[in-house]
Amino acid sequence: MNNSQYPSLLLENAVNELSRLPGIGPKTAMRLALFLLKEKKEDVNKFAESIRLLREEIRYCKECYNISDADVCSICSNPRRDHSLVCVVESVRDVMAIENTQQYGGVYHVLGGVISPMDGIGPDDLNIDPLIDKVRTGGVKEVVFALSATMEGDTTNFYIYRKISDCSVKITTIARGVAIGDELAYADEVTLGRSLVNRLPFENTL
Amino acid sequence: MNNSQYPSLLLENAVNELSRLPGIGPKTAMRLALFLLKEKKEDVNKFAESIRLLREEIRYCKECYNISDADVCSICSNPRRDHSLVCVVESVRDVMAIENTQQYGGVYHVLGGVISPMDGIGPDDLNIDPLIDKVRTGGVKEVVFALSATMEGDTTNFYIYRKISDCSVKITTIARGVAIGDELAYADEVTLGRSLVNRLPFENTL
Repeated sequence: MNNSQYPSLLLENAVNELSRLPGIGPKTAMRLALFLLKEKKEDVNKFAESIRLLREEIRYCKECYNISDADVCSICSNPRRDHSLVCVVESVRDVMAIENTQQYGGVYHVLGGVISPMDGIGPDDLNIDPLIDKVRTGGVKEVVFALSATMEGDTTNFYIYRKISDCSVKITTIARGVAIGDELAYADEVTLGRSLVNRLPFENTL
Repeated sequence: MNNSQYPSLLLENAVNELSRLPGIGPKTAMRLALFLLKEKKEDVNKFAESIRLLREEIRYCKECYNISDADVCSICSNPRRDHSLVCVVESVRDVMAIENTQQYGGVYHVLGGVISPMDGIGPDDLNIDPLIDKVRTGGVKEVVFALSATMEGDTTNFYIYRKISDCSVKITTIARGVAIGDELAYADEVTLGRSLVNRLPFENTL
């Protein structure tokens, strides 16, 4: 067995490549490789091609940095969206999550991450400057922060806030509170405390 | 967002393809796709190519049906292995597991699965006939069954046994018993019972 534990170099390569995926160890990678070996050739080709094309051809909207098949994404090019309302999110996943709520009619700005000195990610590694430019050149009435409720998210919010607080733009952040469906007794105290401080008129929730 | 929840068809295709993998749901597939998007283009190409090549170029040893880069695998073509000792296993994973023990010097026969009427897998879907031919044409002194200790594994063992029991070949099966490192109290009763019935002279284990 050519010095390695694998009976075939092709298999070894595929397993090594698959185990580079996050959350996939060598054993799972082996299972995936053996699964792919049992699939039809054309299906595996389609699989490999979809991944190659994804990385090769993907584009980012030049307005909001969302993933897009065109120069400007379908949200930014939609005249029915409110272009004066900009929601700041970390990644395309968050755009999809918010779109799924069908509660938001503005546009987005995808940062591509949050400021995280521990991971060596500073403001220059993110799409923060284009956001500030966008706000400074006018036309934006409200910026909504919708980053993760983590220290990194809060840091990023605060960094952007300082850069645009002198502009005549409303700066808001999504509400934090007890999740719908959650039992009060199981909510963590920080969240529960915040939801008490930020309580709102009952009629608003009807 | 082109009628789907995805901002890009390329992303949608890749996520759909990734979620076809066993144990990978749409959320994990999305995470994997976004991971791949952040990787270097050449790395993603290498990744996709390793998978395409795996399926396209893989061969199976014509002796033992193990995965191989050549016509005959490195085990079957090794003159130092005992070709009269044949270990019957389900898949290439089992070959690798047994090779890792470094306790086996014979050759293998990979069935490609076990008989499982529930999944519509009969004897004709497996590499059983070539095994029987191999035994009948002579040269094989011992056949070792090393299939899973499941009903399907036992059925397959018994099916093969009936087909070759008239040959002058020794038919053995790997030992079942309490695993090394296991506490007796936690062993299941079938295993514990079997390990009592098949007890062996203490000196043999020294």
